[in-house]
Amino acid sequence: MNYCSQCGEGVNFIVPDGDNRARHVCSACGYIHYENPKMVVGCIPEWEDKILLCRRAIEPRYGLWTLPAGFMENEETSAEGASRETLEEAGAHVEVSQLFAMFSLPHINQIYLMYRASMPDASFAAGTESLDVGLYEEKDIPWEELAFPVVNETLKLYFSDRQTGEFRVHSGDIIKESSEPLRYRVEHL
Amino acid sequence: MNYCSQCGEGVNFIVPDGDNRARHVCSACGYIHYENPKMVVGCIPEWEDKILLCRRAIEPRYGLWTLPAGFMENEETSAEGASRETLEEAGAHVEVSQLFAMFSLPHINQIYLMYRASMPDASFAAGTESLDVGLYEEKDIPWEELAFPVVNETLKLYFSDRQTGEFRVHSGDIIKESSEPLRYRVEHL
Repeated sequence: MNYCSQCGEGVNFIVPDGDNRARHVCSACGYIHYENPKMVVGCIPEWEDKILLCRRAIEPRYGLWTLPAGFMENEETSAEGASRETLEEAGAHVEVSQLFAMFSLPHINQIYLMYRASMPDASFAAGTESLDVGLYEEKDIPWEELAFPVVNETLKLYFSDRQTGEFRVHSGDIIKESSEPLRYRVEHL
Repeated sequence: MNYCSQCGEGVNFIVPDGDNRARHVCSACGYIHYENPKMVVGCIPEWEDKILLCRRAIEPRYGLWTLPAGFMENEETSAEGASRETLEEAGAHVEVSQLFAMFSLPHINQIYLMYRASMPDASFAAGTESLDVGLYEEKDIPWEELAFPVVNETLKLYFSDRQTGEFRVHSGDIIKESSEPLRYRVEHL
């Protein structure tokens, strides 16, 4: 951030009066530009004993598999956002049934909210952000080609709960431990 | 938003190519300024059979009672943010124990995440954003002087669960139905 979005003058990265962390503050009008984490909302779309995965047509992780999910928009609920993303990326109309998992990813300032969602039929189609979309049984999940640690963790918890017959609501953090080699740890609350 | 924070030129509010909703887009450099909901993270601090409430020293709802909560910051987890806000507003060091409730408030583009948290002792003190802080038994909760519908709803669910002996994870939406008179409805997923 270089300029004030209110008045167009330059900003300084300083600690405002009464605050305890640096913000971008306008040098002319004094406006404080707060920056906060973003929500990513998505679904685990269920059809019989299969779930719907998308192969990414965009960076990062082009060509790898993920659950349909994306940035929550203003003026929608988180469940509406999860359903919208599933329609956009996977061409599937779903009914969101239950909050399943929430993860903080502080290294990229994101919170993931993943919902279980039922598919009324087996209709789906790759959206513009997907190369391919498909229904997968547990034994066929491409574990080695998943796009993100949060997808891996969500799917592990999902199949583990399914085996017990009871789906819980999971919450925790995915913490980046190192870049080379890329390594994360998962902490469950 | 009037000016591009990247280059300082004017922005237009238009639908970018390949998108389906209007964004602020720079007329010079083309940068797209996305705006997304913000997370509010907070606690239900527990001490014996009491919980800790704060009386607001700031607008909106100056003088009314609330649970300690505030905007989540970058580079922290949601539980860390909830704990930080409790220390800042109520002077209480808490240990976050469990995600308790998540609500979407689409009319103000916020998501609330409320955690149960235990207080190691009965120490607390009003921070700069609080007029007063106090421990309340259920029978003494100032129901008519609560600051926000989300606080009312969280406390109702909390005491209801406590009576059953089992705390669940709640999720839902708080939808504004009208301004005059001010009226909301709560939808549980």
